[in-house]
Amino acid sequence: MSAPILTTFAGGESGEWLVDRIEPVIGTTLPPVARLSTSASSGAWILRGVTSHHRYVERSEKAALVAVQPALGRPEATLAALIPIRKSAAWWELAQDERRAIFEGRSHHITLGLKYLPAIARRLYHCRELGEPFDFLTWFEYAPENEALFDELVGALRSTEEWRYVEREVDIRLRRDAGA
Amino acid sequence: MSAPILTTFAGGESGEWLVDRIEPVIGTTLPPVARLSTSASSGAWILRGVTSHHRYVERSEKAALVAVQPALGRPEATLAALIPIRKSAAWWELAQDERRAIFEGRSHHITLGLKYLPAIARRLYHCRELGEPFDFLTWFEYAPENEALFDELVGALRSTEEWRYVEREVDIRLRRDAGA
Repeated sequence: MSAPILTTFAGGESGEWLVDRIEPVIGTTLPPVARLSTSASSGAWILRGVTSHHRYVERSEKAALVAVQPALGRPEATLAALIPIRKSAAWWELAQDERRAIFEGRSHHITLGLKYLPAIARRLYHCRELGEPFDFLTWFEYAPENEALFDELVGALRSTEEWRYVEREVDIRLRRDAGA
Repeated sequence: MSAPILTTFAGGESGEWLVDRIEPVIGTTLPPVARLSTSASSGAWILRGVTSHHRYVERSEKAALVAVQPALGRPEATLAALIPIRKSAAWWELAQDERRAIFEGRSHHITLGLKYLPAIARRLYHCRELGEPFDFLTWFEYAPENEALFDELVGALRSTEEWRYVEREVDIRLRRDAGA
């Protein structure tokens, strides 16, 4: 967690994840591809992000998260989602207390996510400072029986006040290549 | 302010700033160079950073800063300092409320900085997520008659609780090349 880790998500013809669908939620979508690789450095499109410290999570919330959040790579978690989002200039002009009030005080982003643990594993990558087209990439992994739960989680997030500041969002659904 | 701007500081034989001195404050220093360029892409050493949104500043503090902070590039501000710092893993493991409590609640970082406005212009660059050797680069510009004030400001910051989490700091003092 401490040192930032740079990850490249390459959409193309190769990779350990089969792409089930790519859907635009807000704004422009990404071109269709057959597979997604987290080890390739080239493809039809490339998204890069870096892990970093939490920007809004407070001590008590961190303790709650650490107690229940699962690791990535669980064998039963054969489905995944990659959701790149970009927030508006208006969001980034807000002060820290204003962003926190929207993020957790009124949108309950952390509390919402906690409800879906440990079913849904999650890792956030930051990319705004890398000059990327998105601000964040969130990677989720879950078992097929939890797919409806996952849809519920993203639906709940998209109805929050925080999401009014999202100006681009793409929803990429994936399935682990069982033969890979 | 809204879109991040990537800046490269290149220490070497060319550049619009003459290097007066490079002093290690905590940890390893940087190699001596004659000049610093903010437009070159190569040199004896290169430090890269990107502007970003404030991570701790609240609305009332932002309003106070915006009201008095001067622009960079004032003709009378012929002296500058570039201060790269890296914070410890212990800092980055803290939750947002813990970092804010140290940063402003007990170290008064924002309040301290405000006291020295508008004499000292300042711009913060983030570099932790870029894979750089430092976490932050802070660039300061001031007139020669405010050099003692600037020394007072950095001295005050270095005596704070926040600074116990700084594990590397270099202090680079510069003078604009009047003939450039």
